[in-house]
Amino acid sequence: MKAGPDSPLAVALSNVTTATITTLLLKKGLRNVWMRGPRPVRAGLARAIGHAFTLRFVPAREDLATPESWAKPVSTRSAIEAMPAGCIAVVDARGVTDAGIFGDILCARMKQRGIAALVTDGVLRDLAGILTTELPIWCAGAAAPPSVAGLTFVNWQEPIGCGGVAVFPDDVIVADDDGAVVIPAGLVDEVVALAAEQERFEAWVMREIGKGVPLPGLYPPNESTRARYEAERDKR
Amino acid sequence: MKAGPDSPLAVALSNVTTATITTLLLKKGLRNVWMRGPRPVRAGLARAIGHAFTLRFVPAREDLATPESWAKPVSTRSAIEAMPAGCIAVVDARGVTDAGIFGDILCARMKQRGIAALVTDGVLRDLAGILTTELPIWCAGAAAPPSVAGLTFVNWQEPIGCGGVAVFPDDVIVADDDGAVVIPAGLVDEVVALAAEQERFEAWVMREIGKGVPLPGLYPPNESTRARYEAERDKR
Amino acid sequence: MKAGPDSPLAVALSNVTTATITTLLLKKGLRNVWMRGPRPVRAGLARAIGHAFTLRFVPAREDLATPESWAKPVSTRSAIEAMPAGCIAVVDARGVTDAGIFGDILCARMKQRGIAALVTDGVLRDLAGILTTELPIWCAGAAAPPSVAGLTFVNWQEPIGCGGVAVFPDDVIVADDDGAVVIPAGLVDEVVALAAEQERFEAWVMREIGKGVPLPGLYPPNESTRARYEAERDKR
Amino acid sequence: MKAGPDSPLAVALSNVTTATITTLLLKKGLRNVWMRGPRPVRAGLARAIGHAFTLRFVPAREDLATPESWAKPVSTRSAIEAMPAGCIAVVDARGVTDAGIFGDILCARMKQRGIAALVTDGVLRDLAGILTTELPIWCAGAAAPPSVAGLTFVNWQEPIGCGGVAVFPDDVIVADDDGAVVIPAGLVDEVVALAAEQERFEAWVMREIGKGVPLPGLYPPNESTRARYEAERDKR
Amino acid sequence: MKAGPDSPLAVALSNVTTATITTLLLKKGLRNVWMRGPRPVRAGLARAIGHAFTLRFVPAREDLATPESWAKPVSTRSAIEAMPAGCIAVVDARGVTDAGIFGDILCARMKQRGIAALVTDGVLRDLAGILTTELPIWCAGAAAPPSVAGLTFVNWQEPIGCGGVAVFPDDVIVADDDGAVVIPAGLVDEVVALAAEQERFEAWVMREIGKGVPLPGLYPPNESTRARYEAERDKR
Amino acid sequence: MKAGPDSPLAVALSNVTTATITTLLLKKGLRNVWMRGPRPVRAGLARAIGHAFTLRFVPAREDLATPESWAKPVSTRSAIEAMPAGCIAVVDARGVTDAGIFGDILCARMKQRGIAALVTDGVLRDLAGILTTELPIWCAGAAAPPSVAGLTFVNWQEPIGCGGVAVFPDDVIVADDDGAVVIPAGLVDEVVALAAEQERFEAWVMREIGKGVPLPGLYPPNESTRARYEAERDKR
Repeated sequence: MKAGPDSPLAVALSNVTTATITTLLLKKGLRNVWMRGPRPVRAGLARAIGHAFTLRFVPAREDLATPESWAKPVSTRSAIEAMPAGCIAVVDARGVTDAGIFGDILCARMKQRGIAALVTDGVLRDLAGILTTELPIWCAGAAAPPSVAGLTFVNWQEPIGCGGVAVFPDDVIVADDDGAVVIPAGLVDEVVALAAEQERFEAWVMREIGKGVPLPGLYPPNESTRARYEAERDKR
Repeated sequence: MKAGPDSPLAVALSNVTTATITTLLLKKGLRNVWMRGPRPVRAGLARAIGHAFTLRFVPAREDLATPESWAKPVSTRSAIEAMPAGCIAVVDARGVTDAGIFGDILCARMKQRGIAALVTDGVLRDLAGILTTELPIWCAGAAAPPSVAGLTFVNWQEPIGCGGVAVFPDDVIVADDDGAVVIPAGLVDEVVALAAEQERFEAWVMREIGKGVPLPGLYPPNESTRARYEAERDKR
Repeated sequence: MKAGPDSPLAVALSNVTTATITTLLLKKGLRNVWMRGPRPVRAGLARAIGHAFTLRFVPAREDLATPESWAKPVSTRSAIEAMPAGCIAVVDARGVTDAGIFGDILCARMKQRGIAALVTDGVLRDLAGILTTELPIWCAGAAAPPSVAGLTFVNWQEPIGCGGVAVFPDDVIVADDDGAVVIPAGLVDEVVALAAEQERFEAWVMREIGKGVPLPGLYPPNESTRARYEAERDKR
Repeated sequence: MKAGPDSPLAVALSNVTTATITTLLLKKGLRNVWMRGPRPVRAGLARAIGHAFTLRFVPAREDLATPESWAKPVSTRSAIEAMPAGCIAVVDARGVTDAGIFGDILCARMKQRGIAALVTDGVLRDLAGILTTELPIWCAGAAAPPSVAGLTFVNWQEPIGCGGVAVFPDDVIVADDDGAVVIPAGLVDEVVALAAEQERFEAWVMREIGKGVPLPGLYPPNESTRARYEAERDKR
Repeated sequence: MKAGPDSPLAVALSNVTTATITTLLLKKGLRNVWMRGPRPVRAGLARAIGHAFTLRFVPAREDLATPESWAKPVSTRSAIEAMPAGCIAVVDARGVTDAGIFGDILCARMKQRGIAALVTDGVLRDLAGILTTELPIWCAGAAAPPSVAGLTFVNWQEPIGCGGVAVFPDDVIVADDDGAVVIPAGLVDEVVALAAEQERFEAWVMREIGKGVPLPGLYPPNESTRARYEAERDKR
Repeated sequence: MKAGPDSPLAVALSNVTTATITTLLLKKGLRNVWMRGPRPVRAGLARAIGHAFTLRFVPAREDLATPESWAKPVSTRSAIEAMPAGCIAVVDARGVTDAGIFGDILCARMKQRGIAALVTDGVLRDLAGILTTELPIWCAGAAAPPSVAGLTFVNWQEPIGCGGVAVFPDDVIVADDDGAVVIPAGLVDEVVALAAEQERFEAWVMREIGKGVPLPGLYPPNESTRARYEAERDKR
């Protein structure tokens, strides 16, 4: 399944919370799929869905991490030009929070190239400026210094760690108010198949709660609750 | 003194800041009553006041912390059903911030049962959903994964730690924009007695500041300031 | 160059972001000028610019850090009265985040004395109250307990550390949405001289991005970009 | 299976490393059984094996955590007297490392009562003194202050967290140079059954390495290595 | 009371553990006197006792923290020459552990000038070299980089923080296997007066433990234990 | 210059401390070359010198980090077989300290293949076993769990971060009692050229200290000290 704003994948997951995705993946034995660090850069961001395009930084070393390095062939600039429209850029900034990986200019270019979102365990710089670009961003905050004050860019489309989670180039990323999760490439179809039903069931439970039904036996459902739910669901 | 929205306790403390409470308790030798972690989940929450109903988690172990565990007799579900209206649920999540202790369904049930507030050093999940429940929450943020990804629920109404502070079932909790504090059960009456006068004095000081009075001698007051304050106070 | 709301310094830097300042200082070999911790206390604060007036705390010791200490000659109260109008108070709170250095009363007095801003790696208390004072504040959050619960005030106008950065009394501080940076006293004139041109160039780059120009060769500029920019700039 | 120095359990596990136990438990899906914090208090401690006897602390509150509290019925003293010989005391100190949970006197009493070992994510005090007691201890270091400076004791034989791991009263603890692991009560027999064979196989691999056999195909073994090992094993 | 190797103060405290000192100070309401960080640099260091001579660092800034700065009038070199024999140098390194405050040369000079000990929440460099100087050191470990890679020296004999504890020039420092504690100048005589009796009582308790006496009623002593102890003590 | 036990590089640096190397690199503007985390695994390790052979881990994901993964073509096993004799293996374990990257078997194979040393910001497992292999190791401690409990191996001979420092395959690593430093490939010859003279000068200073010469003017040397040193040096 391919991503992109109106892709079948994006449509299928558009109403599925990251909370539901983590529950489904935990039932398959995956407990470590939610990235520690990335948060919506502003209130009201729509859920973002796309295939991961990875970028990797290592720590800064003064002989490598210089403003001059920004013009080298392997640079964040080249990486941005290599991104396909609709992807989600996932940046391994090693959790460094005192050097901003990108500012307004790079975010503006990403927005123009149709990148669906930027997700990082690092921080951005020039917060006022990047908000004007309207690129959807999940990050760990803002810091004034340039990336080279703390980080050296090394490559793109490699396996990375982001917020304590492994991300590979083929994986699917979903980000919303609870942060960002990875769906391993091999599990995407299965998650999509289960997600709609899970959301439907939880919405029904919320209506039951609204009627005053107590939790035990309702959520998780015992057999009679399950039967009652299925009967109501099938009636519709 | 009993709690609850219109209880004498809630009325007595409704205009008393947590800042004032910590000052009063420090004067009695208690320096560690403010919980590190709990923050208002949204702007504009009214001050919450109530008796603590404690819940306790330990770390997750894959043989214990499973979706199946949610249906066991000792579960967060049963704990919620055991809470009296007007209490403040205080949850020891051991500061774990990558697994959400509750989501929208449990919060909706707590709201419906008349719980005054939820306070935890952990995080919630499905932030968008829990905001719709209107349960007042003080927590350390949001994370998508379910509690069982990081925590195992073990019991309720035991002594707990929350944000580095000891909380016992009989204690009183007050939470506002500065976070949440505990008033040990044995000190509640005394704090209530002193709080109103302290707030009255500080309001008078703010008016003096507004008139351009310098700080030394004013706050803390020297003898002549104290006399001037008392004269004005008694005139009213 | 002297500071103050309408001083030449404040005018010269009023449109210069802290991001630009850190880039300029990095080019001079200074990589550690952005303070870890201070954040705008509310959205929409205008950029603050001023000379640093430093305050220094050490950890609390129960025999020293008492409410009584607030009336001593060396106290935060005396420090506030010694501040010149237009300065930025920079407070070394050693990164302590569970004791508020100041509350509404001290902030109100600072506002009245014309202090341009308060910057600290610590936290404030009585958040609701300090917001009413309208003092511009960059801090690491809020906590209810008084400073004496965690800190002892020792002196003012000494060299300090704030958020992992050295600040001396003669330095210039600039704070905006990305936090707070120090410009060492000896480098202020040079930074001011370079900053306007840097901002002008980056604004031109943003317009180029808006036209769809790709990043490589544009930012950083290669020779032909540089020539094109200079031609357009000189035309104006 | 019961513990104790010469118990069948202790004999069965006496040559099994905690490294091997974690590998076996990971193969059953348990990834979080090694406690972060506990280290051997001195070089040369023999492997300790026993059933967990749990103790639980919460943070200190000045009205609770006093030298007077040491004489209360629920105290660490009473807990020590309740421990059966051969058990391993596992103490949830919430990772507090600036207050020592026990000193020489309590350790001497534990040694005399035949406690197999003390395991904690906290620290001990009077390091010189506790070494003379010869009680085997795994802890996070030493600190001079008494427990009441940072902790309040609340109960024993409850579920606890220790170093980020859940420990229940029936579980088995094994501690060696790599630290301390928990074997959930329900998995002890299975681990014991697999452990001897795993150690035998790894010892054979070490001999193969000594002969210059390369790693790929050897460890983990491919089919021909597996066959070769089994043939040699069965010959013995 | 003055310090120095054979001073009455050193003699009075030579058999008093830092554990006992923290217990005595806690009974006077001081819970924060043990420094987090300083550890004996090698096994077998004798207890060190002396008056604090304080040094203060702030974070490094590249324009200040240079090898050239080592020759300035306000330098660690000058500070060392200003230290009186018998003092304990207490260095506020702000907990920085990736830049060594001193190496073998400075330690050799301190040893030669008769400094009783060096205590810091930072680290030393050239560990092999400093061990040959035989200066007694309590520190947070070792790191190769020079101080100027992370720290700027600013002054001596000011109030400092060290490991989260306030230290003033007149205070007394005691360091042993459990780390380092401060006795505030005003409390030294009282602590000395109580310490010998406390150590005598605890030694008696250890002998009672050796006889198999259970903990409850013994430690802390109930009335009959207290009477028994006092009778035995007075007989001697 | 090539590495290896008796290589000219190893001979040239065999008496040069990591402390001296960091001082020389700082004078060239490199302040971040010392790795946070790696420590000698036991006392008495000789200084290790060699070219870096890098290995890279990302965080564990249960679908990737399995015992089965150990047999895949891209595995730590294959990486070890690819290492040239005399190299220093530098492992980016992302600072994870609760899963051991290697145990006794892999270390035994590395030793047999002539690897000069293993340096990592992670931990080892089966500490007792790896000590018997006599492979020189600098690491952040020991933990029982296998690497797959926390880490996924992804590649070798890529740029990595280790302990907050960038390491590239061509760089030179030196490790001693103070930990491990990187000398960027392009700076090796220059460092070697300066190092011997620096060590000679510092040894002379230590002899001067032994004669009672005070620090100011001696270290750093003023002109007359410099002249005196050079005269004595040239006499030899």
